[in-house]
Amino acid sequence: MTAPAMLPLAVSLGDPAGVGPELLTEAWTRRAEEGLTPFFAVGGAMVLAEAAAIRGIAAPVERITDPAQAAEVFARALPVLDHADGSYKPGQPDRAGAELALASLTEAARLAVAGEAGGVVTGPIAKSRLAELGFAHPGQTEFVAAASGVALEDAVMMLAGPSLRTVPLTVHIALAEVSGALSAELIQRRCSIVAAALQRDFGLANPRLALAALNPHAGEDGRFGSEEAQIIAPAIAALRALGITVTGPHPADAMFAPHARGDYDVALCMYHDQALIPLKALDFDNGVNVTLGLPIVRTSPDHGTAFGIAGKRLANPGATIAALRMAGECAARRAMTS
Amino acid sequence: MTAPAMLPLAVSLGDPAGVGPELLTEAWTRRAEEGLTPFFAVGGAMVLAEAAAIRGIAAPVERITDPAQAAEVFARALPVLDHADGSYKPGQPDRAGAELALASLTEAARLAVAGEAGGVVTGPIAKSRLAELGFAHPGQTEFVAAASGVALEDAVMMLAGPSLRTVPLTVHIALAEVSGALSAELIQRRCSIVAAALQRDFGLANPRLALAALNPHAGEDGRFGSEEAQIIAPAIAALRALGITVTGPHPADAMFAPHARGDYDVALCMYHDQALIPLKALDFDNGVNVTLGLPIVRTSPDHGTAFGIAGKRLANPGATIAALRMAGECAARRAMTS
Repeated sequence: MTAPAMLPLAVSLGDPAGVGPELLTEAWTRRAEEGLTPFFAVGGAMVLAEAAAIRGIAAPVERITDPAQAAEVFARALPVLDHADGSYKPGQPDRAGAELALASLTEAARLAVAGEAGGVVTGPIAKSRLAELGFAHPGQTEFVAAASGVALEDAVMMLAGPSLRTVPLTVHIALAEVSGALSAELIQRRCSIVAAALQRDFGLANPRLALAALNPHAGEDGRFGSEEAQIIAPAIAALRALGITVTGPHPADAMFAPHARGDYDVALCMYHDQALIPLKALDFDNGVNVTLGLPIVRTSPDHGTAFGIAGKRLANPGATIAALRMAGECAARRAMTS
Repeated sequence: MTAPAMLPLAVSLGDPAGVGPELLTEAWTRRAEEGLTPFFAVGGAMVLAEAAAIRGIAAPVERITDPAQAAEVFARALPVLDHADGSYKPGQPDRAGAELALASLTEAARLAVAGEAGGVVTGPIAKSRLAELGFAHPGQTEFVAAASGVALEDAVMMLAGPSLRTVPLTVHIALAEVSGALSAELIQRRCSIVAAALQRDFGLANPRLALAALNPHAGEDGRFGSEEAQIIAPAIAALRALGITVTGPHPADAMFAPHARGDYDVALCMYHDQALIPLKALDFDNGVNVTLGLPIVRTSPDHGTAFGIAGKRLANPGATIAALRMAGECAARRAMTS
């Protein structure tokens, strides 16, 4: 059986005043050395051409009218699907730019859901600016989940870098509300999704999950906090009964130390900063945000719009390249096994 | 004015079944290349001699009867003050070993308080084993605070490594209790102690303090959590009114990224794991636990007894050497300015 033809990846522009456009053009110039799957930008042809010029790189832009044209164009130019466009004003976000970002995101996700793209890689947006346009989702993860028909609680954010993969089991809630938001059922459900995704999309036959404790020193046998015994341990038992390899609850400060990181494939964390602190401390320039549990592949560079350095040739393309590479690898595994 | 003579540092043995004894002998062998201030062990001469032999290093032990003899002995042998002793059984903790560890700790702290030692460096103990002997303190930090007559809330733990210094403003409490334990007064008091200690002991004329937020993304303007506005921001205002350089509240995931770490001298964290996760992820093998706000200098390697690898030539001496060096530097600054 031969591998089916890979579909190109659809890439949304992100906020045109941020670092997204310049990093996408830079990533295209490194397509060969980084082994990137063909991709195309959704809209923003003028923005991208200007961004490349200001960054000082040779990245010709070529308009396409169908994603199927991307693979052939990709070798000689950055393919850009005809769609919304605008002007490049780095560092000066405005309403027109937010509208462009939203149009690009919406169409990129639609193409992936429709099977016209192998997956979607989303550029960095300013959530508060999209909210002004009526965008009702807390972030792009939730938007992509909705666009692909998945319940929000079944779309799981994973952060992945060269050193570490982490999953926050709760995300944008106050720290004081974390304990109340956790349950054995929630942990079990999300861990099952993570385990399945690491098998299907990341090629790990038997992924090793490590669950973090909530309390310092894992609560020291209940001396400070009972969530380990009452919530996390039962979830671990239930997951093991499903045949999933899982350890914990681990004291969170110890599990990210260098000698401990090799003991697992993914760290499941009880709250946002428990997952994001080690990831950004260790892998800031190469962190990828990937959404697990979707019918489509979706990744994103794990950084923001960085308006303050946009257009100044300062932004590091590492995370964008890593997001493009990871999406290509995940899409290839799906194409092989579907 | 010439520098006053430096007093030697008193070092407690830690649990004799742990990695403390072997690492102390190893540190002594590196005294010249690491530029270590003279130190002496308090008790455990037989334990140390056996630990050095099993580790396979040439570290002769020489008994002294007065700390004043340490400086002269230090060049040729590891000075050990005559005190409690025992046998070396690595990996086999027992009650006799816990009693030895406690006797060594008690006397080492007493010598520092009495002005017979320039400071105290404490070896790793097993808290649960000391508790069986009636040791009523949660850890060595609290013991040393009590021994030096400082109220517990005024003894502040700082973790320091090559990449980062962090202070957890709350420590051994359940995560769900952190929000209720924080107050502007607590933050202000501990930050003032930290700022004064960085001036006095670390030679930073104008230390830059960075306060972490409690909630993810610093609460996004109150969308998830109000502690930033109600507790942390008022504390920052009060500290600035005292002339202290302080920024924040910073989103905790971003502030430990490589490019952000250079913007401050110490990160003040709202809870244990917020401070310990980045420190151990980045500086596990060289982390020092230092107690600020005491009349004496006190440091400790930031790792445990590691019973599982004791006596196997595996333990890394980096943190012990770093703790000895830091104590020597702090003591020297105090000696110069007292």
